[in-house]
Formats: sequence, C-alpha cells, structure tokens
Amino acid sequence: MSTRDFIDDCERLLELAPVTAAPIRHHVFVCTGKSCSAVDSAEVKAAFERELKARGMQVGKEKKGCNPKGSVVLTECGSVGFCAIGAAVLVYPDGVWYAQVRAWDVPEIVEEHLVKGRPVERLALLKIGSD
Amino acid sequence: MSTRDFIDDCERLLELAPVTAAPIRHHVFVCTGKSCSAVDSAEVKAAFERELKARGMQVGKEKKGCNPKGSVVLTECGSVGFCAIGAAVLVYPDGVWYAQVRAWDVPEIVEEHLVKGRPVERLALLKIGSD
Repeated sequence: MSTRDFIDDCERLLELAPVTAAPIRHHVFVCTGKSCSAVDSAEVKAAFERELKARGMQVGKEKKGCNPKGSVVLTECGSVGFCAIGAAVLVYPDGVWYAQVRAWDVPEIVEEHLVKGRPVERLALLKIGSD
Repeated sequence: MSTRDFIDDCERLLELAPVTAAPIRHHVFVCTGKSCSAVDSAEVKAAFERELKARGMQVGKEKKGCNPKGSVVLTECGSVGFCAIGAAVLVYPDGVWYAQVRAWDVPEIVEEHLVKGRPVERLALLKIGSD
C-alpha cells in the first residue's frame, strides 16, 4: 500500500494538477481494449489528437502540442462492452457512446459534437444519464 | 485500416452490445496511468469491483460476477493529469473527478455517491460540466 501523505490544502492540490485550471467542456474516451484495437482504435485516438491539437482544443502541456487552457480532455479507456461494434468512443459529461468509429469519422465528431454541440446521430448508439 | 462492414441496423447493433440494455446511471473510471499505478490504483479498481459486484451494481456478464442489468460501468482509463495527486477516479455523467483515492475510500464513494447521489466532498477536486 502507498504511504504517500494525504494533501488537505486545496490550493496546493490545484497547483499540483494544472488540468484543474482548464475550462473543460468535454472528456473524450477512446477504447483501447483488444477488440477496439483490432479495428484501429489507436488510429481513431491519433485522429482526435491531430484534430484537437490543430484547433487548440486539447488540454495538456504546450510542449506536447496541447493547450493548458483547452476545452477537451482526451484519454484512452478499457472495454465498455462494444467489443463487437468498435471502435467505441465516449463523450462525457454528455454521456454519448459512439460505435463503429473510424479515423475518418473524427473530424465530423469534433466539428459537430465538440464544437457545435450536436452529437453525430449516425454513430451515436447510447446516451447515458438521459431519463 | 479495418475493412469490417458498417452495420446500419440499430436492432442488430443493440443485440451485439448487451451493455446497451443495462439501466446505466454511472460510469466510473479508475486511472491506471504510471503515476496512479504507483499509488495502487489497481487496488482501487479491485475495491470497486468487489463493492459493486457484492451489491449487484456492476454491469457485465453474470459468469464474471457482474449483473447484465447493473447500473454502474467500471473501466480503466489513461492519465488525466492527476499524476501528482492520484489515484484519480472519475464519475460520469456527474463529472466528478476524485483525487488521492485509496482502496479504503471506495466503499464510501459507492455508498454515498453511487447509491445516495452525494459526492464525497473531501476527495472530490473537480466538477466537469458545471457552469
């Protein structure tokens, strides 16, 4: 078990995690489980990186081509049960789960969903958190 | 590039991904990046599995001890920038980012946040999607 001390000071915590200062609007997860990887999810993630960095939207360090004040966090994730219909891409907090995503779909997801707020219906299969 | 054919039939897609039939209320991500792993994030994820399976809340196959009609999806994720203050645990669509989570905190997060809908304030550092 870790013995690292618990930090109580909230300001100190925020300093240690500059991501907390970014005006995050969306968190995009690309599944890199075995099945999604077999349909090139790494290419899908790379396409998001290219598209988001080109627009200055990806949160992260400038030396990595990202923007400390970006609006989109991009992360890999494990399998979500879309193994037969990958690649899976999830957009939160919207709760939109996309299926069968290919690298060539990414500019449309970025432009329509992340910029204009209109999920790409032809790929969106599930909506989490809707009543 | 993949050559798998695109499936247009929505019913067929839903059959291929039984997770779509689950009444999902929360998606929990545990960071398994290098820094979070160094503070035992694998133990944190295992604690969520134990706690959620015991309550019949984790979505998944019965043969894996999960519930096809569970309410919580549990997934690993890559680094979110909480490297110095891990382990990071994210709860969506709520958009709550927890920092410094240890395995012993997990029962409280499950009971208070996932069951009762009250985020654990002493660990919650960021809220995504709030205005």
